[in-house]
Amino acid sequence: MTAGKAAVRAATAGPARTGRRPGNPDTRQAILDAARGAFAESGFDGSSIRRIAGRAGVDPALVHHYFGTKDELFMATVEIPVDLPGLLRQVGAPGVDGLGERIVTMILTVWESPAGAGLAGWLRTALADEARARLLRQFVVVSVARPFASSLGIPEPERERRTGLVMTQVLGLIVSRYLLFLEPVVSLSPAQVVASVGATVQRYLTGPLPNGAG
Amino acid sequence: MTAGKAAVRAATAGPARTGRRPGNPDTRQAILDAARGAFAESGFDGSSIRRIAGRAGVDPALVHHYFGTKDELFMATVEIPVDLPGLLRQVGAPGVDGLGERIVTMILTVWESPAGAGLAGWLRTALADEARARLLRQFVVVSVARPFASSLGIPEPERERRTGLVMTQVLGLIVSRYLLFLEPVVSLSPAQVVASVGATVQRYLTGPLPNGAG
Repeated sequence: MTAGKAAVRAATAGPARTGRRPGNPDTRQAILDAARGAFAESGFDGSSIRRIAGRAGVDPALVHHYFGTKDELFMATVEIPVDLPGLLRQVGAPGVDGLGERIVTMILTVWESPAGAGLAGWLRTALADEARARLLRQFVVVSVARPFASSLGIPEPERERRTGLVMTQVLGLIVSRYLLFLEPVVSLSPAQVVASVGATVQRYLTGPLPNGAG
Repeated sequence: MTAGKAAVRAATAGPARTGRRPGNPDTRQAILDAARGAFAESGFDGSSIRRIAGRAGVDPALVHHYFGTKDELFMATVEIPVDLPGLLRQVGAPGVDGLGERIVTMILTVWESPAGAGLAGWLRTALADEARARLLRQFVVVSVARPFASSLGIPEPERERRTGLVMTQVLGLIVSRYLLFLEPVVSLSPAQVVASVGATVQRYLTGPLPNGAG
């Protein structure tokens, strides 16, 4: 638990440091703006580094220099104040047993850390604005759900369904407890949330799927 | 199913008709504004009809004349484009058996009806704006959760916890499927959603509560 908390603290201390020099702030910003426009228009899969570089009027090598991979560039455009992929890797590492409770514990720890307020503002904006909602959508699918589900070895035909079900539960916990502060949800103790909601997430990940043909 | 759909259609056709005459639109609006201010400042329980009438500069009898009970006045300030209390009464009437699936079926039917777009706009606004989020909060607790939970005979000590857990799941389904259009959630068939999410809601309502001491 202490090691886990320390890791969460590290992951919520700010954007991931890549060791790259910050570079010219104007160029950096121009690339970010171009990337945001491209992702919003054509989606993550439909936007190449080459095309983004073209929009920004810079060489593709400079995009890689400033931001690394397309994934990392995407994370930078989303500006999420937490290293979510890193947290998910850490939570997923011990495998699928007990994963539901670990996911819910991670959510409570991060949202009740100092990074929580920043996350709430970020999510509120993303929900209110259609263009940002589109970015959030891609972020969740491309940077969270896909790599996470495939790393866990959930069989392909069920993967989408299980991931979708987990999202309905996890997102609802976050929205009701940390955006809306709904009374009966806020009053639940962390232990109650981890036990009950964790059991649901685990069931969605590895339990039977009723009425699978529907 | 056909009778259920007809009832949903009636409940989503617009604000509940009370048979009262619309009255002077300026007075009506003044009362609504006063009520919104009072509910935002002092909460539902801390706002009396008398005090709201005082703020609006009218006689309390006029408030009752235009809006009926304090509950009905509150519903009018929230401006939710669906008769949610009516829908919940209908869904709860057959009792607690199978209630999870009926709640989820009702959610899918309402949000995929013509009223869905209005509801999405309403919820988006409520999430983005702190004052409206406060109204939404009170609305959910006062007009939905409390009367619903007590009508079902869920024992008092567990009622808050079960209601809170149901909210995390129900709200997450709505936000991920109808506000964010998250890919893996949107792709789930209605039958899959009803079976899997309905089973979770039922478990939260009547199943064992793990780690209840926590």
